Amino acid sequence: MSNDFSGWMRERQERVELALERLLPDAGHIPKPLHTAMRHSTLGGGKRIRPLLAYAAGEIGAADLRHVDNAACALELIHVYSLVHDDLPCMDNDVLRRGKPTCHVAFGEPTALLAGDSLQSLAFECLASDTPGEHPARQIEMIRILAHASGSFGMAGGQAIDLGSVGVDLTLPELEFMHILKTGALISAAVQLGSLCGTELNPEHSNALKRYAHCVGLAFQVVDDVLDATGDSHQLGKTAGKDAEHDKPTYVSLMGIAAARELATDLHQQAIDAIAKLPGSDRLADLAHFILQRTS
Amino acid sequence: MSNDFSGWMRERQERVELALERLLPDAGHIPKPLHTAMRHSTLGGGKRIRPLLAYAAGEIGAADLRHVDNAACALELIHVYSLVHDDLPCMDNDVLRRGKPTCHVAFGEPTALLAGDSLQSLAFECLASDTPGEHPARQIEMIRILAHASGSFGMAGGQAIDLGSVGVDLTLPELEFMHILKTGALISAAVQLGSLCGTELNPEHSNALKRYAHCVGLAFQVVDDVLDATGDSHQLGKTAGKDAEHDKPTYVSLMGIAAARELATDLHQQAIDAIAKLPGSDRLADLAHFILQRTS
Repeated sequence: MSNDFSGWMRERQERVELALERLLPDAGHIPKPLHTAMRHSTLGGGKRIRPLLAYAAGEIGAADLRHVDNAACALELIHVYSLVHDDLPCMDNDVLRRGKPTCHVAFGEPTALLAGDSLQSLAFECLASDTPGEHPARQIEMIRILAHASGSFGMAGGQAIDLGSVGVDLTLPELEFMHILKTGALISAAVQLGSLCGTELNPEHSNALKRYAHCVGLAFQVVDDVLDATGDSHQLGKTAGKDAEHDKPTYVSLMGIAAARELATDLHQQAIDAIAKLPGSDRLADLAHFILQRTS
Repeated sequence: MSNDFSGWMRERQERVELALERLLPDAGHIPKPLHTAMRHSTLGGGKRIRPLLAYAAGEIGAADLRHVDNAACALELIHVYSLVHDDLPCMDNDVLRRGKPTCHVAFGEPTALLAGDSLQSLAFECLASDTPGEHPARQIEMIRILAHASGSFGMAGGQAIDLGSVGVDLTLPELEFMHILKTGALISAAVQLGSLCGTELNPEHSNALKRYAHCVGLAFQVVDDVLDATGDSHQLGKTAGKDAEHDKPTYVSLMGIAAARELATDLHQQAIDAIAKLPGSDRLADLAHFILQRTS
């Protein structure tokens, strides 16, 4: 990992926090409970992995940071809306998220439902905002990619497969397919959106980036499964041990912890190899390392 | 009403039905329950008021029908997602919609939640689709308008105010403000999106259209309140009498049925007057009449 990575990461995390803070409606605006709920769930928490991936991918084509800010916010808003809905009683019925009460615990189910819905709308409003110097055709491509990655062929589709897999013996390829949609689609979108903010990549570099995103997306989920099985709720900021409790198939339940850790290491290496010859990709390599090593 | 209005309406309703049928993922695609639920809630029902408004507004600037198709589908998808979420047990807990079991009754709450979420994503994916001859800057403007009208300052915000108004004595201006967000925002967006598909309007015509949309949006809600108080569930295709049962403030509860009917007639007249000098607005006038006269 580069020496200055932690400084870079902190700076970008603060940057996206400030951008989200500005983008989200003030809690004093009517309807106040809804806006308060949206801010509660979005601000002051999370590792901001998807924004970080967008900023890192933007560095390859020397993207204007103000353009990446919009992509970073939109990605995080989609991620947060999915957490808010995933925590609802009819889904995971979870009470703790990012070290705080979940949205429906703090504001009630109806407001949490609407907060998630509104965060999704805001993500697309943000990507469609009038940003000086941004190319409209690129903006539309980014909206199309994010919408596809969020919907039934992406994140929401992965969650639907997840619902149907409780208590079911999935094979490893089936588990992988579920996670490629559930987590991988938005992580790949983060890398694509970031790179679309910079100068256009040649097909070889673009493919390298796709392979990187695929491997990092899966590695992220394998590490998540390991942390759920081995971490504690306080450290994670969310309820640990949920997967086993809900009888969900995971990399840990299918392979055991040792093999899952080995798989994460392999995927990390594949991600690094994919971008070895891609100029300007140092931050992406750092992020792959950070994702592998993370403890929360 | 023009002689051929019912033929025009039927033709446009069939057109948007076909476009939605093509746009929605096939029910055979994985995850099948999610895609089946999305189709169940979207296809084969509803008056398609928002698409009809978009087609009618498109006629002012002689819009290419293929461009309006995308706007019409996106508007209907947002409307349908809001119905699916609004029917959930934590919201209105409704069992009947468009004469069919509601989404969560037919597919379970988690799938209904994800179906609503995915329909919202699909709306933006549709507006961001690659349509020959469409101007990218216009497309972005349409996405921005639809996202704003759907979110916390539009439809979802109106629903949040609605939540907080149960058992509360709202004043008429407060009720109006709620409905301007809850119903009016998407109806105004329909008129704006349709007109953006055609040649650019001058400011005078554009303002006329805004006044029309404002009045029609309110008239629609006043008629809705009257129908809820006087109609039967079979004819409406949804549960009648819900407002009184849930102790929700409505135009009927605040003014009585006779005065609410009079208000709807006034708003209809204001809508007609607003576009009296707007060339090509015959269909919009017809639609205002249809909205006033509807019985379901």
